[in-house]
Amino acid sequence: MAKEITPRSENYSEWYLNIVHKARMADNSAVRGCMVIKPHGFAIWEKMRDTLDAMFKETGHVNAYFPLFIPKSFLSREAAHVEGFAKECAVVTHYRLMNDPNGNGVIVDPEAKLEEELIVRPTSETIIWNSYRDWIQSYRDLPLLINQWANVVRWEMRTRPFLRTTEFLWQEGHTAHANAAEAMAETRLILDLYAKFAEEYMAMPVIKGIKTANERFAGADETFCIEALMQDGKALQAGTSHFLGQNFAKAFDVQFLNKENQQEYVWATSWGVSTRLIGGLIMTHSDDDGLVLPPKLAPIQVVIVPIPKPSDELSVVADKIAKSLRAKGIRVKIDNDDQNRPGFKFAEYEMIGVPVRLGIGARDLANNQIEVARRDTKEKLSVSLDGIDDYVAQLLEDIQQNLFNRAKAFRDENIRKVDSWDEFVETLETKAGFVSAHWDGTTETELEIKERTKATIRCIPVDGEMEDGKCVLTGKPSTRRVLFALAY
Amino acid sequence: MAKEITPRSENYSEWYLNIVHKARMADNSAVRGCMVIKPHGFAIWEKMRDTLDAMFKETGHVNAYFPLFIPKSFLSREAAHVEGFAKECAVVTHYRLMNDPNGNGVIVDPEAKLEEELIVRPTSETIIWNSYRDWIQSYRDLPLLINQWANVVRWEMRTRPFLRTTEFLWQEGHTAHANAAEAMAETRLILDLYAKFAEEYMAMPVIKGIKTANERFAGADETFCIEALMQDGKALQAGTSHFLGQNFAKAFDVQFLNKENQQEYVWATSWGVSTRLIGGLIMTHSDDDGLVLPPKLAPIQVVIVPIPKPSDELSVVADKIAKSLRAKGIRVKIDNDDQNRPGFKFAEYEMIGVPVRLGIGARDLANNQIEVARRDTKEKLSVSLDGIDDYVAQLLEDIQQNLFNRAKAFRDENIRKVDSWDEFVETLETKAGFVSAHWDGTTETELEIKERTKATIRCIPVDGEMEDGKCVLTGKPSTRRVLFALAY
Repeated sequence: MAKEITPRSENYSEWYLNIVHKARMADNSAVRGCMVIKPHGFAIWEKMRDTLDAMFKETGHVNAYFPLFIPKSFLSREAAHVEGFAKECAVVTHYRLMNDPNGNGVIVDPEAKLEEELIVRPTSETIIWNSYRDWIQSYRDLPLLINQWANVVRWEMRTRPFLRTTEFLWQEGHTAHANAAEAMAETRLILDLYAKFAEEYMAMPVIKGIKTANERFAGADETFCIEALMQDGKALQAGTSHFLGQNFAKAFDVQFLNKENQQEYVWATSWGVSTRLIGGLIMTHSDDDGLVLPPKLAPIQVVIVPIPKPSDELSVVADKIAKSLRAKGIRVKIDNDDQNRPGFKFAEYEMIGVPVRLGIGARDLANNQIEVARRDTKEKLSVSLDGIDDYVAQLLEDIQQNLFNRAKAFRDENIRKVDSWDEFVETLETKAGFVSAHWDGTTETELEIKERTKATIRCIPVDGEMEDGKCVLTGKPSTRRVLFALAY
Repeated sequence: MAKEITPRSENYSEWYLNIVHKARMADNSAVRGCMVIKPHGFAIWEKMRDTLDAMFKETGHVNAYFPLFIPKSFLSREAAHVEGFAKECAVVTHYRLMNDPNGNGVIVDPEAKLEEELIVRPTSETIIWNSYRDWIQSYRDLPLLINQWANVVRWEMRTRPFLRTTEFLWQEGHTAHANAAEAMAETRLILDLYAKFAEEYMAMPVIKGIKTANERFAGADETFCIEALMQDGKALQAGTSHFLGQNFAKAFDVQFLNKENQQEYVWATSWGVSTRLIGGLIMTHSDDDGLVLPPKLAPIQVVIVPIPKPSDELSVVADKIAKSLRAKGIRVKIDNDDQNRPGFKFAEYEMIGVPVRLGIGARDLANNQIEVARRDTKEKLSVSLDGIDDYVAQLLEDIQQNLFNRAKAFRDENIRKVDSWDEFVETLETKAGFVSAHWDGTTETELEIKERTKATIRCIPVDGEMEDGKCVLTGKPSTRRVLFALAY
């Protein structure tokens, strides 16, 4: 089965699609650009969602749910927002079908035309701020810290499972604050939370940064992001946190009575991560044999395979090991299938990314040993059955750490400081990765560079140092380096 | 605050809307028929969802996610299904907006018309069975036990928060089986699971039954349901589980190779419960002072209110009690607000349905006592601080049980056996509730009764006894009673 995967070195895009389909993560659907998230892919999303949800709640956020549909006119209220979002979206124009008088199934009933078209939400700032007008009267109603788990639709021309789909799942936080400082603190809190999640759970190192004006969210005063590097040297924007200033409060007339008894517009943030993270997870760790998952997000962390096949004797041992592992909170599967051979099963579990495989056979057991195989390095070891639970628990931690270290080493090796235009172009063409270079701060230069090289400014790193230099294209003065890359 | 609720006796519909809004469960939205589920309402939904999700997983089901959109032609594939669902639904006809040349915001781009319109899913049998064709080849791929948590849209003419909204949240299970017996067993398993959830968690007694052909799900061979009785004597269909036979397998050509090496159509079930359950929860337990929640589903189970206001001394006690309760897994809030007076707070917590309120004041503490108030009966008691954690844990169980007993007593009192047409009409007009009567089994009679009385056959109880009798309308012979009621 593993043999059917196109190697990364041969065709990276095809390798990615192979992993998505053969690891049973997602399937194409009958609707253009929409995927079906299959049980194995969805189980990973559930782990991500539950982890993030707990982190949001620990920091004082609550969940709510707002309508799927947005009246068309709402999009026009915020000038920048409409430019960014009112273009490629699904438009509901009718609310009824009728039998085709010619007998060919059903047709849209022309009588059932909506007075105002509804947009399937591409993001929910407008519909939510329209509600906040009723919810916020005084400073005592603030802060309002609300998150929503939802599906959204953006009519993308080129789609790829998880990375860019017409419909996707995400969370969108929408908070309201009494002043700019609190809203900015919230924006940064979430940025840090996203970075922590990416690094500690996904084992995916990220760079926290600020987007340029050109790459900013439509309607934001400032957009922060986490950027990751995929194995092919392309960058992936993995999450964004926006400081929205008073833009949406003004667009939807949301004012509050402040402590000084004056009416003031409310300050806002919004922030989101989506099923795109699953694409990032795949492209950070997986290999030519299939999916590689960090243990913290793996639906099955350990699989126990009786060798050569299940028997009463082996079952007793398997159950005992499983019980001791489950007592430690480890997610275990025992493979009791008696149709397929061990080699087939091994390839299958490598394909779907189970971090640890335990092979138990009569010969090993006679020596009080079992075979432990780790997915990340593909090493196999004979390990004593005594204390196997502690051994496996530690191994899962080691794998989690190893995946992060490996990805971080790769990422760090692929950030290259460049100070001339020729070097800039050559680096992008021959090595990809992040290029750290000076930029004169203008959108004009940014677009010119994109035009010539396809590279975009991924971010201005928030932890970057101030350093005098000259713009790599124009030679104009610059005070800090920014990160360029080709990106998903 | 509580004073603002219209009493049930005065106007039940208005009372319901008052509870929904004043207990901060949901809000109207700018989109016709769509509600905003506010944090308190959503927290209850999260408890319901997590409980049901665990029950589904314990019985072998996994989650997945299928597209929001369904190609229009899919609805026509199954003849009965199209009649039931292809009528009042949201239709996406375009995928792009453009700036209005006259400068008035944005308009639909006439160039961006879809070749085939997309329907926003009213239910997902069609899009899911279209995928199952690729997923199922042999009996080894069966059973397929998949559930999805999703939003769906049905363009309802008359809407009411939670009970009937244009968009609502639900779960829909879609399973595939190798034979009719297994599919029927699954249908019944879920029916029992729903009844268990309704009774043990929602404290809402339900009657398990079979729908008549006329009330059956469009595309099902048999629909099972759980029916509850609201305080106004109207019935609420709270969940349905459908045996779909081979209808969708035939419509989407889903065949499998059986153990006898023959191609056969797959057998199916589907089943769902929705945010409508929240409406049922409200109307089963709440009173003229606000929401009443069963402890198992209450986001806050216990609130501790310092009297007359928070102080350092009272805080120490409150924290200690909260800690001991949390150690028992009880969800506790300490009210540290120092602006509002106890009376205001009490009314507020009664409004949002917190099952137990602990009042701690200096005088009581001097006697080593605190005041315990239960929401269901509104009783207040002075209780010793010693062992307060055990006392409260037991009290929460008692409240859960009391709510169920109270609702069951009301429901049982309101099932009336009726054997003549006059009595039938009079009972419905004067007492409402379930009317248990004989029916001749024809759709014609069923519709005639509905026409004359507005009552529908809620179900043929699965636990009902066989009994010879005569149809209450036609006098024709009948072998068992069915339940009639006015219904939501």
